[in-house]
Amino acid sequence: MKVIEIAASVLKGNDRIADENRIVFRDNHVFVVNVMGSPGAGKTSLLLKTIEALGQGFNIGVIEGDIATSHDAELIQAAGVPVVQINTQGACHLDAMMIKTALTHFDLAKIDLLFIENVGNLVCPAGFRLGESARIVVSSVPEGDDKPKKYPGMFRVVDAVLLNKIDLLDVFGFNTNTFKEDVLPAGFSSFSSKPEIFEVSCKTEKGLSVWLDWLKKHGGVVCR
Amino acid sequence: MKVIEIAASVLKGNDRIADENRIVFRDNHVFVVNVMGSPGAGKTSLLLKTIEALGQGFNIGVIEGDIATSHDAELIQAAGVPVVQINTQGACHLDAMMIKTALTHFDLAKIDLLFIENVGNLVCPAGFRLGESARIVVSSVPEGDDKPKKYPGMFRVVDAVLLNKIDLLDVFGFNTNTFKEDVLPAGFSSFSSKPEIFEVSCKTEKGLSVWLDWLKKHGGVVCR
Repeated sequence: MKVIEIAASVLKGNDRIADENRIVFRDNHVFVVNVMGSPGAGKTSLLLKTIEALGQGFNIGVIEGDIATSHDAELIQAAGVPVVQINTQGACHLDAMMIKTALTHFDLAKIDLLFIENVGNLVCPAGFRLGESARIVVSSVPEGDDKPKKYPGMFRVVDAVLLNKIDLLDVFGFNTNTFKEDVLPAGFSSFSSKPEIFEVSCKTEKGLSVWLDWLKKHGGVVCR
Repeated sequence: MKVIEIAASVLKGNDRIADENRIVFRDNHVFVVNVMGSPGAGKTSLLLKTIEALGQGFNIGVIEGDIATSHDAELIQAAGVPVVQINTQGACHLDAMMIKTALTHFDLAKIDLLFIENVGNLVCPAGFRLGESARIVVSSVPEGDDKPKKYPGMFRVVDAVLLNKIDLLDVFGFNTNTFKEDVLPAGFSSFSSKPEIFEVSCKTEKGLSVWLDWLKKHGGVVCR
């Protein structure tokens, strides 16, 4: 079997605008989480459960990134928090300029926690800083336990990994140890040498409290 | 809720090389299928089942595209067919030049069916022609029934949609009618005005025979 290595670099032209966003977030004491993951991993479900649990204690806002439709944003809006939908019209990731534009539609002084749900894509979003406080990836049991190994670029830039749909571990013969072992020390993690791994089910709510505690801990440092 | 529309165009600089590949495939009577889909949708499982079913009647070859690892290629090799692994080292899709390079490692005169398993990504691969005879997307029940609506760029460039993991329809409350209705007439389909939809389970093998018949029908026209 022949293995061909092809050099490629991820485009990074937006770091300056990401830094501007970061300053805006810092000045307004907003804790911003960039939520990434494959299509259908459960990003919106996680946000809905998080809003349900923390919506009383924190003022939450959401930016929804999708190629098309405002389906997810409508779900978030129905949960009673301010939401801005970005339709990328084909683009495979959000970038810092899209976020900068979206921010003009929020009153940031009234937001504690801002979630940015990125386009469903386990590759491209990892390469684009948005000015966020933390990056997480939602990975789901049906995708298989080999995802950290096969998509290292994503799993190495995040502060936390949410392994979702753990109510289906047996159905898929998913090896949690294999998955965890392949989540390697993150090169860019803000908080720890290795991403935290939270095993959750947004359906049964199992494990969500640990994720919420993590969010309250890190968000609480930033929010006033 | 504010909706922001951001113009973006998918990069297409590789069409000339794709045309070169297409001529090479035509001259060698090779039917080439570009297999796309989200991470974990079941692309490799589909190829393994297809090789198992058709390996006696067709000479099959596989190009495996991954960001990292040769895990899938090893599975294919174990099934007894020639395979070339392309590691894109971060790139989110295969392009025509990668395929042109990989082809030098095959004896195309001895190949009838060539499968190209693209990087797991429901966005970017749709924008890059490889010179293939047909494009398919593998979409899986756990991803949700809203994927054709949310990722129209992919579902509109394919000739066939393989809805995989249908043994789990009930577990996920998946609405097959919703899914099918949102698979709209393809702008670029080679064979029909609307992509064919095959409901399959690579685990139970349900529905696979219809997919195999489709492959034999279209592949049989090309292969000698």
